[in-house]
Amino acid sequence: MSARGRFITVEGGEGAGKTTQLATLQRCLEQAGRRVVRSREPGGTPLGEELRELLLQPRASGMCADAELLLMFAARAEHLAQLIEPALARGDWVLCDRFTDATYAYQGGGRGLDPARIATLETFAQGTLRPDRVLVFDVPPALGLERARRRSAADRFEQEQLAFFERVRQVYLERAARWPQRYTVIDATAPLAEVSARVEAIAAQLLTETAS
Amino acid sequence: MSARGRFITVEGGEGAGKTTQLATLQRCLEQAGRRVVRSREPGGTPLGEELRELLLQPRASGMCADAELLLMFAARAEHLAQLIEPALARGDWVLCDRFTDATYAYQGGGRGLDPARIATLETFAQGTLRPDRVLVFDVPPALGLERARRRSAADRFEQEQLAFFERVRQVYLERAARWPQRYTVIDATAPLAEVSARVEAIAAQLLTETAS
Repeated sequence: MSARGRFITVEGGEGAGKTTQLATLQRCLEQAGRRVVRSREPGGTPLGEELRELLLQPRASGMCADAELLLMFAARAEHLAQLIEPALARGDWVLCDRFTDATYAYQGGGRGLDPARIATLETFAQGTLRPDRVLVFDVPPALGLERARRRSAADRFEQEQLAFFERVRQVYLERAARWPQRYTVIDATAPLAEVSARVEAIAAQLLTETAS
Repeated sequence: MSARGRFITVEGGEGAGKTTQLATLQRCLEQAGRRVVRSREPGGTPLGEELRELLLQPRASGMCADAELLLMFAARAEHLAQLIEPALARGDWVLCDRFTDATYAYQGGGRGLDPARIATLETFAQGTLRPDRVLVFDVPPALGLERARRRSAADRFEQEQLAFFERVRQVYLERAARWPQRYTVIDATAPLAEVSARVEAIAAQLLTETAS
């Protein structure tokens, strides 16, 4: 029987380069012989992708905050049951582009929802499950948004004010400071090669921790 | 300023005649000069109706129980914020075809989810809000299902076993027995004219209670 896999999430504001660095991380782990399942939130399952559509379309902006939070965790519960838990149980590593930290950052910090309400749903949907490692790609919002806008049309979240993204960033940094063993903040304003080198070093460390 | 309206929900298994009796109740209240908003769950708002589609389509049957429950309460939170609370605040009466009792009956009794988990989300989404009056149209499942099948193609819930609906009925009756001031069980096997007369009497009583 193989050991349980590791659950690694990648977080950060718009234009922090998460997608590029997820690919770097996946390549490092696969080269070391790990089976890797890559996913994203909201999404990751057929139901989750349908809910992602509902959550990110501009006309959803009238949705009440509680409904938004419950939909996020509905997608997450399905993601855990259908994809994340089975993968970890069979020994695969799961790399996920955003997870519950994003809910604390965007709905909590950004929209001002009480973190205690988020914690209620986190416990409801996840029990005690938390990511083994969270990589926070940190970039000042003004720079991140400029990068993101060059890339694609603004979705609902990207239309929000800069102050919103300052609050998002603050929550990520606070959470990273609170659990330094599980969180790593990566300066995403550095040149791409440097950021990639940092991610490669983290991958090497993760592999060492779990060497059999 | 008008007094707060009353929130009345109608519950019961398949083929219990809820829809017909909702119309009777609405007519009685409107004839007495009340403004009535009629709605249903899951549904009642554009988001709620989209979630209703997701919840009732046969291919949703693989959805995990937690996701189903979170979607139900997402639709409910939106329904409360957009329709129910504003209507009650302006003095309208709200008649709703199913509400949280249905979640306890179908997801709790039917699917065997822990009622304590349902209660967590009920408190999350509703705070202390509960219907002022719940009318439970009671019919033995074998008879109710036969009626429902004559009416339309079976949706996902109607495909379930008879035992499922026995458990659903049991939860409704238990909840009605627990809060007799708020719940009224109506024998829906009686002839239509008798059931309607019973509903008219309840409407008269509700109007008396709130006479100004």
